[in-house]
Amino acid sequence: MNKLLIVGSVAFDAIETPFGKTDKILGGAGTYIGLASSFFKVKSAIVSVVGEDFPQEHIDLFTNRGIDVSAIEVVKGGKTFFWKGRYHNDLNSRDTLETQLNVLGDFQPKVPQNFKDADVVMLGNLHPLVQISVLDQMEKAPKLVVLDTMNFWMDCALPELKEVIKRVDVITVNDEEARQLTGEYSLVKAAAKIHEMGPEYVVIKKGEHGALLFHDKQVFFAPALPLEEVFDPTGAGDTFAGGFAGYIAQSENLSFKNMKNAIIYGSTLASFCVEQFGTQRMEDVSKEEVIDRLQQFKALTQFDISLDLKNEEE
Amino acid sequence: MNKLLIVGSVAFDAIETPFGKTDKILGGAGTYIGLASSFFKVKSAIVSVVGEDFPQEHIDLFTNRGIDVSAIEVVKGGKTFFWKGRYHNDLNSRDTLETQLNVLGDFQPKVPQNFKDADVVMLGNLHPLVQISVLDQMEKAPKLVVLDTMNFWMDCALPELKEVIKRVDVITVNDEEARQLTGEYSLVKAAAKIHEMGPEYVVIKKGEHGALLFHDKQVFFAPALPLEEVFDPTGAGDTFAGGFAGYIAQSENLSFKNMKNAIIYGSTLASFCVEQFGTQRMEDVSKEEVIDRLQQFKALTQFDISLDLKNEEE
Repeated sequence: MNKLLIVGSVAFDAIETPFGKTDKILGGAGTYIGLASSFFKVKSAIVSVVGEDFPQEHIDLFTNRGIDVSAIEVVKGGKTFFWKGRYHNDLNSRDTLETQLNVLGDFQPKVPQNFKDADVVMLGNLHPLVQISVLDQMEKAPKLVVLDTMNFWMDCALPELKEVIKRVDVITVNDEEARQLTGEYSLVKAAAKIHEMGPEYVVIKKGEHGALLFHDKQVFFAPALPLEEVFDPTGAGDTFAGGFAGYIAQSENLSFKNMKNAIIYGSTLASFCVEQFGTQRMEDVSKEEVIDRLQQFKALTQFDISLDLKNEEE
Repeated sequence: MNKLLIVGSVAFDAIETPFGKTDKILGGAGTYIGLASSFFKVKSAIVSVVGEDFPQEHIDLFTNRGIDVSAIEVVKGGKTFFWKGRYHNDLNSRDTLETQLNVLGDFQPKVPQNFKDADVVMLGNLHPLVQISVLDQMEKAPKLVVLDTMNFWMDCALPELKEVIKRVDVITVNDEEARQLTGEYSLVKAAAKIHEMGPEYVVIKKGEHGALLFHDKQVFFAPALPLEEVFDPTGAGDTFAGGFAGYIAQSENLSFKNMKNAIIYGSTLASFCVEQFGTQRMEDVSKEEVIDRLQQFKALTQFDISLDLKNEEE
């Protein structure tokens, strides 16, 4: 089985949406990526850090899904990273109410020896220096490195971010981040500029408006599944990235055609993530439900057109 | 050949975008719908009204494309409808700077005798009473009636708008209009409510984010083609509607499967419309270019996925 190395936060979130609010619940990019990738036939490990306040049941959740947790460091006397946020009524934007970096502040990622030859590396949203450190520890060049990042690092660690961008094959950012990173409003132009920065594949996430995959002159688009209600968008982007990386790691096929499928798997898993608070839905969704929703994606997007227009002399 | 009856404004627009501005140029919903539908094997007529100031060359443009102009009334001493608008930097919103209703203020549409048995009726954006009057003049029930409308009529003629909505098979509105009409933020819920108002098919246009087609429990999504630059969005929605109606009129097939194709044709034609000011691009685009762009739409959206997930016991 292929190996997928994941680096990302394992954390507590407290979330407010128009539909309700939560106390401290399980969150973090590494968490969502791990859960999403666990739907695929891969051997995965999460590199992360938590405090002593982190419950064993959350660790058990990963273990039960076959995820190697040996590289989730537990800092004695430390407290786990905590984020508190409130979504606006349209769920497309949010305010951060509180961020406690805690043990994540001094995080020195340690790649386990048996994952230093991982086939795919998924760098979840974290400080670019942490992401670079993970790449530096690899003993064998991974077949594919996927990077997720966000505007925060563009604001406060742009040179380091550009360093890591140079070293990855796939980058996932949202539309506003792609614009911020390049100064281009047009996503086609923004993707071309990001491509020049290093990544062969540029994925631009547009939230409820879907995701675009750019590669050379090729472009593929996957919509988000139209849902009656988006309940909590937290983790949707990470779940998308985890589904993408998990599928690619399983299939060992780096063609553009297969990247399309990875995008569809990522979108499918993300469509579950937003249906309940936090990781709740991702914890109970079954393989059958995923396959059923993939069929919905096909029905949503696939057509069989005949090219039939008037001849110009008619 | 099937008959397509179009009602809609034939007008002058003056447009400002971040890329430049125009003097009075050819515009109007009826104009864009007519041009788009002229790519298909249909016999079409535009019911509209213009003033004496309307140049013969614009009328000739329609005639040269095989569009029956006998129901475009020319009011002696009258002035043609004029709209002036300025788009914001993101091109997703605009301000109306000036509206001169002119001859459109007393418009009494007259359906030509030989189109009172039209197969498809495309009601372009106009006062709902004008749209109703057209339907009342039909002597044979059309196979399909398509309605385009906008928020303006929801604000000032809602009861009349609801009357016409009751009588159509397909409605096209944008996302904000769907929300305004139903009070539902979720487009899935909004479409269900609009469906209850009458139309079997509900098309929700999301501009650069594509379009959704709802029918019973089925939904289809077509993205907008990602373009390097949107130059002028004026008429894109009308071009979409005209491509949709033109294709349906040509194909005589009212299945959901075929409606999908109509959406793709509409999106394809709209993707040309926005490339230059006003009708400029729609006047010079060739059949070959349309077919080439349909292929781009296929590449953008079509995938061939294998359903391959970990078994839960693995």
